Amino acid sequence: MKTSLDCIPCFTRQALDAARMVSDSPAVHEEIVRRVMSMAARMDFSQPPPVVGQKIHRIIRVLTGVDDPYRQVKDRFNRFALELYPGMKRRIACSADRFETAVRLAIAGNVIDLGLKSEVSEAEVERAIEEALAAPLPTESIVGLRESIAQADDILYIADNAGEIVFDRLLIEELLPKRVTVAVRGHAVLNDATRADAEAAGLLDMVEVIDTDSDAPGTVLTDCSDEFLERFARADLVLAKGQGNYETLSDADAEVFFLLKAKCEVIAEDIGCEPGSVVVRRNRGRERAASNVTE
Amino acid sequence: MKTSLDCIPCFTRQALDAARMVSDSPAVHEEIVRRVMSMAARMDFSQPPPVVGQKIHRIIRVLTGVDDPYRQVKDRFNRFALELYPGMKRRIACSADRFETAVRLAIAGNVIDLGLKSEVSEAEVERAIEEALAAPLPTESIVGLRESIAQADDILYIADNAGEIVFDRLLIEELLPKRVTVAVRGHAVLNDATRADAEAAGLLDMVEVIDTDSDAPGTVLTDCSDEFLERFARADLVLAKGQGNYETLSDADAEVFFLLKAKCEVIAEDIGCEPGSVVVRRNRGRERAASNVTE
Repeated sequence: MKTSLDCIPCFTRQALDAARMVSDSPAVHEEIVRRVMSMAARMDFSQPPPVVGQKIHRIIRVLTGVDDPYRQVKDRFNRFALELYPGMKRRIACSADRFETAVRLAIAGNVIDLGLKSEVSEAEVERAIEEALAAPLPTESIVGLRESIAQADDILYIADNAGEIVFDRLLIEELLPKRVTVAVRGHAVLNDATRADAEAAGLLDMVEVIDTDSDAPGTVLTDCSDEFLERFARADLVLAKGQGNYETLSDADAEVFFLLKAKCEVIAEDIGCEPGSVVVRRNRGRERAASNVTE
Repeated sequence: MKTSLDCIPCFTRQALDAARMVSDSPAVHEEIVRRVMSMAARMDFSQPPPVVGQKIHRIIRVLTGVDDPYRQVKDRFNRFALELYPGMKRRIACSADRFETAVRLAIAGNVIDLGLKSEVSEAEVERAIEEALAAPLPTESIVGLRESIAQADDILYIADNAGEIVFDRLLIEELLPKRVTVAVRGHAVLNDATRADAEAAGLLDMVEVIDTDSDAPGTVLTDCSDEFLERFARADLVLAKGQGNYETLSDADAEVFFLLKAKCEVIAEDIGCEPGSVVVRRNRGRERAASNVTE
């Protein structure tokens, strides 16, 4: 998916957010915003938004010398999600359809995304849980996902954000973890999950965790390691969480199920849904152009 | 008031809004956004936001050859406000305090500002009227304004936006129009009111209408004509509507009453109020540093 001009105001805000996390100096904030605008003025809009995000957050790291501006925020969301975890686990256990409840909760966790807005409150996360559990979701989409999972021996689950990855654990636990590999970002960028967050979520003892070896806030295949690409190609099924993974993989020649909340108008329009929707979307790879299914 | 880094995302969105109003070509939209970002990357943030807005909208006019991108939008808001006018006039006539009701309605009209967001619906305008009539507004601020008006022989009323200028007419009619001069922008910029909008609002037969001779979406004194500056200096009282006029005149050495809705966090913080507030604020000019009153 290419970058929309509507993404630009959001990039500028992201740069300012990150700048303020790592420095109290207005001069540093200003320098970062100027550099980001100057870069954005020359960028290639045919690339997906995470490619631009990758460049912005590199600028911020270089200018501030801070390798992981969102570390504290990520820790806070991991802790908060772990507090919610036992309650969510009980809701899954008591539900009529454990799998569907786990899918909905995993998608609810996708609200923890600081690419879209400067702050996400704990109340918003709790509200997102209730909304995702009640949201309309076509039966076919859950059936299609369930069938594909039933047939898969090797599932690659590409995580998105810190905090959210604890919600992902709930779904992974329903998938028979031994056939699941979880992929995280190769380097800190935005509030995206890295190996440290997979560890915080308790995933290291449960599944194999790999990383993309990339510092893009999405899965830019041309920027991923050969090891990741080999796992990506070998998987019977790829589950990709969140907007950044959708933006970078929606045109990929691979069968991917995307699980996300469509949090902005740009992505909602690309998917063909209302902003705020709970989305389970299947991308059939080569068949996609002929029989694209928005489920 | 200087430009905040938080204004930058808003400028980018403004540029895109205006670009889409005048062209269906994505290539033109892209060129405008690139040029605006490139300019913004080098701009002087110590200047008020309307100075940046002025440059942005000049870029758009030059690149598209369209002199007044918001003309249709302005006509629509003028028509809608004129439809509301008789009902608002009745509300003033039936109110316990005609003057205060007219002040509140004039401020309600300030919601018609496309600098802050891409669209303003008719429902939002109607909601703003009810909110402004019910909003808390310290008695002192209305008393201070009323007293200053009672003592003034020569009032300069600096209008802000099209549509809103019909709401201004309601207040001007309460002020003894013969002592009022209305000032509008000297050239089309954003959805700001020009002479054409003063005419549409029926003001040309009621008061003298002058313009700033500037294409800034505010009152940048260094960019205004000598004629305007002479009137500004001569006025016993200046009433300035809206954010753009506040941003450019809040540090001026002049006694000005600002009437506005504080629609974004940047301006709310500068004023010291909650975003969304109905604001009557007096700037005492030279005395200001010693006895600044937020009323």
